[in-house]
Amino acid sequence: MKSMEQKTKVISKEADYLRALYQEWSDRMEANPNMTIADFRSLFDEWEKPTFEPEDVTYKTDKVGGVDVIWTYPIGCDKSKVLIYTHGGGFAVGSSSSHRKLAGHMAKALGVSSVVLDYRRSPENPFPAQLEDAASVYQALLASGIKAKDIGTIGDSAGGNLAVASVLKFRELGLELPGAVIAFSPWLDMELTGSTLESNAATDALITVPLLEGMIGMFMGDDNSKTRDPLANPLHADFNGFPPLYINAGGVEMLLDDARRLHTRATEAGVQATLSVVEGMQHVFPCLAGRAPEADEEVSRIAAWYRAL
Amino acid sequence: MKSMEQKTKVISKEADYLRALYQEWSDRMEANPNMTIADFRSLFDEWEKPTFEPEDVTYKTDKVGGVDVIWTYPIGCDKSKVLIYTHGGGFAVGSSSSHRKLAGHMAKALGVSSVVLDYRRSPENPFPAQLEDAASVYQALLASGIKAKDIGTIGDSAGGNLAVASVLKFRELGLELPGAVIAFSPWLDMELTGSTLESNAATDALITVPLLEGMIGMFMGDDNSKTRDPLANPLHADFNGFPPLYINAGGVEMLLDDARRLHTRATEAGVQATLSVVEGMQHVFPCLAGRAPEADEEVSRIAAWYRAL
Repeated sequence: MKSMEQKTKVISKEADYLRALYQEWSDRMEANPNMTIADFRSLFDEWEKPTFEPEDVTYKTDKVGGVDVIWTYPIGCDKSKVLIYTHGGGFAVGSSSSHRKLAGHMAKALGVSSVVLDYRRSPENPFPAQLEDAASVYQALLASGIKAKDIGTIGDSAGGNLAVASVLKFRELGLELPGAVIAFSPWLDMELTGSTLESNAATDALITVPLLEGMIGMFMGDDNSKTRDPLANPLHADFNGFPPLYINAGGVEMLLDDARRLHTRATEAGVQATLSVVEGMQHVFPCLAGRAPEADEEVSRIAAWYRAL
Repeated sequence: MKSMEQKTKVISKEADYLRALYQEWSDRMEANPNMTIADFRSLFDEWEKPTFEPEDVTYKTDKVGGVDVIWTYPIGCDKSKVLIYTHGGGFAVGSSSSHRKLAGHMAKALGVSSVVLDYRRSPENPFPAQLEDAASVYQALLASGIKAKDIGTIGDSAGGNLAVASVLKFRELGLELPGAVIAFSPWLDMELTGSTLESNAATDALITVPLLEGMIGMFMGDDNSKTRDPLANPLHADFNGFPPLYINAGGVEMLLDDARRLHTRATEAGVQATLSVVEGMQHVFPCLAGRAPEADEEVSRIAAWYRAL
């Protein structure tokens, strides 16, 4: 189905903030190769920095299905509709705090509420703890009276993987499927075979193959045989009957090919799938929402897509 | 004037979260004595963790008087009244992000808006850059039509120093003074002469004398002679005509004596000054707002004090 290449002649100064931030992280990780997981998490919690506060959104610290969450409630939103937001960070880092504002922007644009999950992270909790937590939240929302079609899953990077894989998990559990799935720069391929890992290596300011390998090691624990498990690597999944799917990626990022292959697999299975690739953008560029026009325009495109479903 | 010792028989499990977090930071700082300022800032941005999201509060990323800020707007608040929030972190670390929720809780309890300053931090910007930024914000608010009596300054730790010192700076600039000043666990004494530095050393989970000495070095730059400058060390200030002042501190913290001495100095100068010391609590315990009853009760006491002014 639809695939859009968003051509932007000049990358805005505001969007370059993300490249500079990623470069700073890369420099700090290189300077401190034995960084502890606690310090690694502190560093990645700076992912909140690119995002400006979305106006007219309130928040609530809560537990849903036993999982720690932050609710985002745009003023006047339809609270009977919920986005389940799974944050990025290689399944190991990132948090509800780093992604609260991005989830707030998305909820506001779509006119719904969102719930940002502090799912259990690796290495303390390897695969599939993350999917179990997402399923627990989904089942709690259904039990509270929210309709499956009014729930969307959404996430970025490893959380984009979870947004897709959690729906495969819901299917395995025999649950009715959500109405929409949104994946920002999803990281799907645990075998690291994407062509852009090499071709975009010089332009991606954050991702490196060793970084991804380290994340896979923490996610898979002692058992690397699961790198082809469809719930860990949705590129191996059967997308028959999958909900409408919006995928994006930045044009210069190493994980671009993951987004493209997900779009191809889903389209081949007859899924209503849209791919938006924005030229010049880094990994998870929608986190520039409120700051950079490239992100705000992408958020608007997703809102238009969602409202037309 | 008033001095309250809040006796709490049992420290709540929720309040112990802050002691445990500080202990973890202390362990990490000890394990990494050459931590860069960037990593130090990442670590202290975890100061947002103890605070639960205040419900029914919205936010806005903005610039006021040339200073980056986050506005907090409790739904239904009186926007003609503003708290200027200066965050803690030894003038070097901490941010609008680490203190957004705490400022939101305070604004909500007092029924006003608040503006959380990303003032310039040391060591890149030593004393008195922080006061210049606070003055710039104050003047911009006055110029926008907000009345001086409807502005309050508030801050914690080094930001509690700034909440007091900025008012001394406003006086030096010949400006009308704000209507209220609130200081959580203020760190005032740049000469490090407080009696509780020693007597509470075993119970304070965060502060150490070497940590404070490092902060002073960054704040004062090459010129340590300013440790007795009233704008850097308000214990040396003339409090004649100073606005109503609410001071608190935790009973087990090393900076307790700074709070007590500020209360004495202000009271001796005829200021309407209140000191609240809550037994068993750590440095800046109000950051447990929403999580621990000890913090929520303190926030309520401050709201009652403010409304009675």
